[in-house]
Amino acid sequence: MKAVHIAGVGMTPFGKSRSTLVELLREAAARALLNSKIHEVDAIYIAAMNPEEFTGESNLASHVAEALELTGIPALRVETASSAGAAALQAAFQGVASGYYRHVLVIGGEKMTHLSTSATTRILAKVIDAQERQCGATMPALAAMITERYRRKYHISQARLERILCRVAMKNHANGSHNPYAQFREPISHSKYISSKLIATPLRLYDCSPISDGAAATVLTAERTNVVISGIGQGTGPVSLRARSTFTCFPATQIAARKAYEMAALSPRDIDFAEVHDAFTPFEMIGTEDLGFFAPGKGGDAIEAGTTAVDGDFPVNASGGLKSRGHPVGASGLAQIVEAVKILRGDAQFKFKREPRRALTHSIGGFATNNFVTIIERADESVRAQNSWKSIFSSESLHRQRKRKNADGRVAAEGEIETFTILYTTPDGFLPPLPLALIRDRRGMRMLAQGEDTQQLKIGRAVYLRQVAGTYYFTVKSHFQTVREALKQLLRSGRHRRKT
Amino acid sequence: MKAVHIAGVGMTPFGKSRSTLVELLREAAARALLNSKIHEVDAIYIAAMNPEEFTGESNLASHVAEALELTGIPALRVETASSAGAAALQAAFQGVASGYYRHVLVIGGEKMTHLSTSATTRILAKVIDAQERQCGATMPALAAMITERYRRKYHISQARLERILCRVAMKNHANGSHNPYAQFREPISHSKYISSKLIATPLRLYDCSPISDGAAATVLTAERTNVVISGIGQGTGPVSLRARSTFTCFPATQIAARKAYEMAALSPRDIDFAEVHDAFTPFEMIGTEDLGFFAPGKGGDAIEAGTTAVDGDFPVNASGGLKSRGHPVGASGLAQIVEAVKILRGDAQFKFKREPRRALTHSIGGFATNNFVTIIERADESVRAQNSWKSIFSSESLHRQRKRKNADGRVAAEGEIETFTILYTTPDGFLPPLPLALIRDRRGMRMLAQGEDTQQLKIGRAVYLRQVAGTYYFTVKSHFQTVREALKQLLRSGRHRRKT
Repeated sequence: MKAVHIAGVGMTPFGKSRSTLVELLREAAARALLNSKIHEVDAIYIAAMNPEEFTGESNLASHVAEALELTGIPALRVETASSAGAAALQAAFQGVASGYYRHVLVIGGEKMTHLSTSATTRILAKVIDAQERQCGATMPALAAMITERYRRKYHISQARLERILCRVAMKNHANGSHNPYAQFREPISHSKYISSKLIATPLRLYDCSPISDGAAATVLTAERTNVVISGIGQGTGPVSLRARSTFTCFPATQIAARKAYEMAALSPRDIDFAEVHDAFTPFEMIGTEDLGFFAPGKGGDAIEAGTTAVDGDFPVNASGGLKSRGHPVGASGLAQIVEAVKILRGDAQFKFKREPRRALTHSIGGFATNNFVTIIERADESVRAQNSWKSIFSSESLHRQRKRKNADGRVAAEGEIETFTILYTTPDGFLPPLPLALIRDRRGMRMLAQGEDTQQLKIGRAVYLRQVAGTYYFTVKSHFQTVREALKQLLRSGRHRRKT
Repeated sequence: MKAVHIAGVGMTPFGKSRSTLVELLREAAARALLNSKIHEVDAIYIAAMNPEEFTGESNLASHVAEALELTGIPALRVETASSAGAAALQAAFQGVASGYYRHVLVIGGEKMTHLSTSATTRILAKVIDAQERQCGATMPALAAMITERYRRKYHISQARLERILCRVAMKNHANGSHNPYAQFREPISHSKYISSKLIATPLRLYDCSPISDGAAATVLTAERTNVVISGIGQGTGPVSLRARSTFTCFPATQIAARKAYEMAALSPRDIDFAEVHDAFTPFEMIGTEDLGFFAPGKGGDAIEAGTTAVDGDFPVNASGGLKSRGHPVGASGLAQIVEAVKILRGDAQFKFKREPRRALTHSIGGFATNNFVTIIERADESVRAQNSWKSIFSSESLHRQRKRKNADGRVAAEGEIETFTILYTTPDGFLPPLPLALIRDRRGMRMLAQGEDTQQLKIGRAVYLRQVAGTYYFTVKSHFQTVREALKQLLRSGRHRRKT
């Protein structure tokens, strides 16, 4: 298998954004490409959990290729619920490791904050088993039930559990306060944690990651760079709670970790730091156990001892984690890679006790039904290619799309038919027969427009154009009108000649 | 790059089905696995275009792994609109070609017929550019406009165009009449075609592929079998009609074909037959030109000359194509592979003029925005592994899931709490605080249930259970009830002892 290296990383700030999903994906991609020494990519792997329902978008891969001005090259979407970013990375890894592609772009993102919390919760809860969802189960409810069982199994008092979870939340919010891309950049106090509302006993608001917009990207290459992917693994688990064999750990993580460690020929003690999927604070504690960093039931001890703090022996979520960086679901698996690469390269705004060489990232899909583990390591660089992306992604061009949208509004009053049809089976809200034509206006701009008459439709025929509430309408010019206009034009040019 | 072989293929009948999407995917997967000599797979690649909106399903990959009783192994979903099946094949190809996996299962499917035609059309139309959709454009409308422009460019009279398209429809329906998996198995006459309703001029109902349910699957392996994938390529194109540089061919197909031919070191004349994406009859004509089988503008001549008929020199859509086999969008790209493999192996119910050794399949995503071309060839077999799937996929087990659903209804009246939470932030329609618990009943069956009281919740506590309209409810047994029951039990066992 060919070695796969990371050539560049980039992400948008996470939080509430006014950009569309495609704009977010484009921005993260541009940052990753500009961050690389690669000057062209062979394919684009795109992760998004549910753009169909969050933003009503279909055919995302083609849209993204077009937004990146890379139409023509292969683009596909990969989805495994909330671990989609990690899944796209793994598929892209196979694309390069096979020799089929040399350089590929991987982008993940989600647009969620424009919906109400209840609408977002409803969409997110669709990953849950139907019977359990019908009972009222949400993601926090299931996480809470796992936590209650964990507490019971390891004989942890309610008071101590609260201390441990509060410590995770405080640590990750403190870490996030140093991360310019994080959604929450304020440390939280013990009293703020304890006074936050109960979501599902024993979990409070500050035990849950937020609803976020954002995107993250990375460029993979078969050339040597200063970071290599040395291990990558995936595992699945039962969808429903009732079908599980255990309620205090996640076998899907354990399977993924085993594969990643075997592939990298490493053990947990060889890893210097980790980004662990902390969608809920207890998931960080359980994750560090499933990944083999701490013995089962001992994750809480490590948190209380400060082992997982930035200045501890084994920093976990030094970036702030999903908890304070934010959790745009399709982006999170790749954001972890972005953060880990920055730390390995020494680009982070903090220093660990010892210089890190090996990182592990861990992403959970659904309610731990589709999990990924990736190990990346520092390597010696040999890449020589030059980056030429600045010509496409100037800071001006990063906002070009939005401008182009506005430009669409200024439509010339006349044009001609490029092709047409009369639609007899129309979408809801449109009465048949509906004449449709692709019109090219005098400035060369094209638009699809509705006609008012099914007669006189012909390719090349001149039309009048107008726009009402975002929809274009055309009227075919009569022969009389066309002749009169030609005469007027002739007269004008005659006058013009006389004047000069 | 490692060679990738096809070890098995299978599909469900296409058409209207009472099975769920997951059941369809499971059935196709079972048929492909039973058709192979492979006894275990390392991963599952799943294609579906829009299960979120067609059937309200999320987290499909985890659900499918579970339905196949393969929970644990990697499973991911791939999506490129209506070419998703071909996209999953390509991603899986890379998984095996890289050496990362040895044997993988690829499944594609869609469940569409339960919705009204207008609802389905609306979901399918989401792949179209937003401005053009707002104007009333549907997939048939755009296909019609391409056809009108094609007719103009190549100076084809309306009457001749109608003859050509009718010929495509009649050929593919006649071919489908021999295919036991096809949705339509009746040949159609010229008068039936000509009297079918206009959908969008110049396209009639019989120019359009139907709305279908169905799934198709294949098993890929690094071991040698009697069919090898020798070329595979993908290309993207602009999403909107107005951004296109041409309206009489699809560059995304041309890019994909170039890559596939280069990889296979073959030219179009080396191919013996093809499955071409005939979502609309003119697409078959244009497809055969984009793929290099006929010169631009000459596709119609080949159809009229009978070249593409089953008994012609170059059979196209001998299976019936999307037109009569049906078009469950996520399945079509893989169904083409299933059909081509059957023909190459000599398992089809017809004979070509010459024995076929090389096939090409062509799948279109969206409005030709994300297209795939795959070349498969006969090879010498060396696979030795034994198939052991019959133990899992007996004909009885293929319907087990449905039975299991019914079994869920028979719930014992008592059980105990395995874990619980009190949900304070509830989904729409549920009032907080909502006590939820995972209950294990006396027969060992588990279910998630709603409580009636937030007090007395504790792991291990005994509860009464009842079911109302598919939702389970529990009531914690009081100490008094528990003691009384224990006493009753004691008395019963005492009586029992006395009798014996």
